[in-house]
Amino acid sequence: MSPPGGVHALVRRSHEERVLRVLRQRGALSRGEIAARVGLSRTTVSEITSDLIARGAITIVGTDAVGRVGSGRPAERLALDPSSGQFMAVDFGHRRVNVAVADASHDVIALGTSRYPESAGWPERIPAAFALIKRLSVDKGVHYRALQAIAVGVPGWGDRSPADGVAETFAEHFGAPVTVDNNVRFAGLAEALRSPADSVQNLIYVRLSDGVGGGVVVNGQLVRGADGSAGEFGHITVAGPDGEPCRCGKRGCVETIASVPAILARCRSLGVRVETLDDLRAAVRIAEPTVDKVLREAGAAVGRALGAAAMMLNPSEIVLSGEIVHIAPMLFQQVVSTITYELSYRAEAAPVIRPALLADEGGALGAIAVLFHESPLLAGYPEDPVAPSGPIERTKEHPMRTVAGTRPEEGLR
Amino acid sequence: MSPPGGVHALVRRSHEERVLRVLRQRGALSRGEIAARVGLSRTTVSEITSDLIARGAITIVGTDAVGRVGSGRPAERLALDPSSGQFMAVDFGHRRVNVAVADASHDVIALGTSRYPESAGWPERIPAAFALIKRLSVDKGVHYRALQAIAVGVPGWGDRSPADGVAETFAEHFGAPVTVDNNVRFAGLAEALRSPADSVQNLIYVRLSDGVGGGVVVNGQLVRGADGSAGEFGHITVAGPDGEPCRCGKRGCVETIASVPAILARCRSLGVRVETLDDLRAAVRIAEPTVDKVLREAGAAVGRALGAAAMMLNPSEIVLSGEIVHIAPMLFQQVVSTITYELSYRAEAAPVIRPALLADEGGALGAIAVLFHESPLLAGYPEDPVAPSGPIERTKEHPMRTVAGTRPEEGLR
Repeated sequence: MSPPGGVHALVRRSHEERVLRVLRQRGALSRGEIAARVGLSRTTVSEITSDLIARGAITIVGTDAVGRVGSGRPAERLALDPSSGQFMAVDFGHRRVNVAVADASHDVIALGTSRYPESAGWPERIPAAFALIKRLSVDKGVHYRALQAIAVGVPGWGDRSPADGVAETFAEHFGAPVTVDNNVRFAGLAEALRSPADSVQNLIYVRLSDGVGGGVVVNGQLVRGADGSAGEFGHITVAGPDGEPCRCGKRGCVETIASVPAILARCRSLGVRVETLDDLRAAVRIAEPTVDKVLREAGAAVGRALGAAAMMLNPSEIVLSGEIVHIAPMLFQQVVSTITYELSYRAEAAPVIRPALLADEGGALGAIAVLFHESPLLAGYPEDPVAPSGPIERTKEHPMRTVAGTRPEEGLR
Repeated sequence: MSPPGGVHALVRRSHEERVLRVLRQRGALSRGEIAARVGLSRTTVSEITSDLIARGAITIVGTDAVGRVGSGRPAERLALDPSSGQFMAVDFGHRRVNVAVADASHDVIALGTSRYPESAGWPERIPAAFALIKRLSVDKGVHYRALQAIAVGVPGWGDRSPADGVAETFAEHFGAPVTVDNNVRFAGLAEALRSPADSVQNLIYVRLSDGVGGGVVVNGQLVRGADGSAGEFGHITVAGPDGEPCRCGKRGCVETIASVPAILARCRSLGVRVETLDDLRAAVRIAEPTVDKVLREAGAAVGRALGAAAMMLNPSEIVLSGEIVHIAPMLFQQVVSTITYELSYRAEAAPVIRPALLADEGGALGAIAVLFHESPLLAGYPEDPVAPSGPIERTKEHPMRTVAGTRPEEGLR
């Protein structure tokens, strides 16, 4: 009753599947790295990969000569046939959409931005994204013939996200499963993956931009919370009842003091004409004292809220992102000073506080990482976003929204 | 070369070990529950348990008749011979020590308290604990002949704990491995284990007592943080630079407003003579307006800090403990009101806010749970606190301190 080869063929198939899985999850690897990860001997791995190369399932994509330490012959790096699958991330901000496309070897093969007015709603944003995706296809020669999955980052958290219908639109248009989550959380994930520390088990990420958002890594896992709204740093109250009103309906939230529009508005209310980040940069360059004061106030507010969060979570890293962090060094310095004071009673255990390493592309790169699902940081995230049929999957346990794709009637491809 | 029975005997031994492990971890279980947990057939489990009973390794400790739903013959419950091992928890507070002892079937067979003056240092606290342990032995007929492990809860967090030497003293005295951790974190763990919700994945626990402390469960795991100081809720700043000075060196910490001594002192400074919690209870009973105001201020401070923590972590439960929570209902009500305001922008995802179910014994019961290590809440905790020799194990990755026991020269036994 056994097929020819019997047990031996079954074992071989199982080994092949393990090799393919690790390449799908990790991107390009040398034979030695494959052997270490799947727990097979170098000899067995060489046999299996020769066979897989001969059958066209995997290819040699280069060597590890670049960045290699020490002497010795560079090792070939193997990967799934890069063209065998594409993975797309779409990160919607308030004024732009970023798109990143990776191939099956995990190389990002296209990355682009398209702007829209701040007032644009989804009926304008989505066509802007579709046009950008088409342009990337033409300009970079990227095709989406075997699009495996799409991750969409949106402003807003959990079920309260204003992006209802976006997932369905992408799923129908591209015929691929879609995963939607908060874009700042995606960016926080990308930052944890790129951390200079070997392995980040506990990290707090905050972005100061049009709004203020956050992402949290605890015990080596990205945190979503009970219903997907963990990390809502921007609405922590830091000024009392006399604080400025916030769009959330409360007063004195971090966002009313430390978002870019709030900082610009506060400068203007004190008589300094700054309309844009460029104006702010110019004012910082001449050390305008009022602007300096406003930026330090914003830094102190962020530092107090981050200090409180750090007392609860005892992170090893706190990461601050947003263009303004680079434009206004005194803001970052003030955040560091305030956190240092807040944690002064146990100064020996102070976290590393650093600016983000990734710029605006972080959200898209984090979203790609979610699709490859390669990191232990994503433990607890839904493994398989694909529901074979039916409209929307939304569960209390996994509030990340996933939508099954259906083959498109018409498409961009 | 195989022993008689060969592979069959090896498989049988492995099955036996799995049955013994599940009984060690879970306490008493029926044969059906054992079969479900270890993934063996009822028949196999019945064979194995008959053999283990005959050899005296496990015993029948009762039936599930009590609390059983439906008809049918009550199932026998099996457990390791209860006398085959004891597990001890010692929870040091500022004015009392609690001791709990459990047997190998997980039954708590002794629970007691001994008081000491607030000024007592470790040279007085430790003998008080030893005397209590001896008294429990005499009064309850508990012996410590096969003491497996000791968990000691102490005030203070991480490496900053003032309890240096305590672990060594217990390890030498009892010849058993000792695990030391913060006592409020132990209590938070006990509360999560007893939660009315089926499974608590995200919970924030706060205790208002002589100090103010906290414990955090995220993604279904108890959080220790980068160096063991997660949950230090009491030193979140809620009043500004005008706040009262705190013992930590800062000003305006939650502890300076919402600890029991802070509340009593504030009442006195406003002219109300309250020296003890009993005085406070009497004042609450007559609705003394100044006391009411002070309690609401304390509740608002706790609520603001908990609101901030909840925005970052999006918990499904927030648990408030401490005798004062029961004495002063308006304090609890104010905490609820303030958190509700802080989270008002997403009212549909409000957490359950509840008083603790366990009273003062929570810390000791949580410490016992850590010794049995039966819960997924403890993922990431060190599995084996026993270092076979040498003095102190203290690592950055697992800052919970564990100390290897050495056989005592003299002892209580």
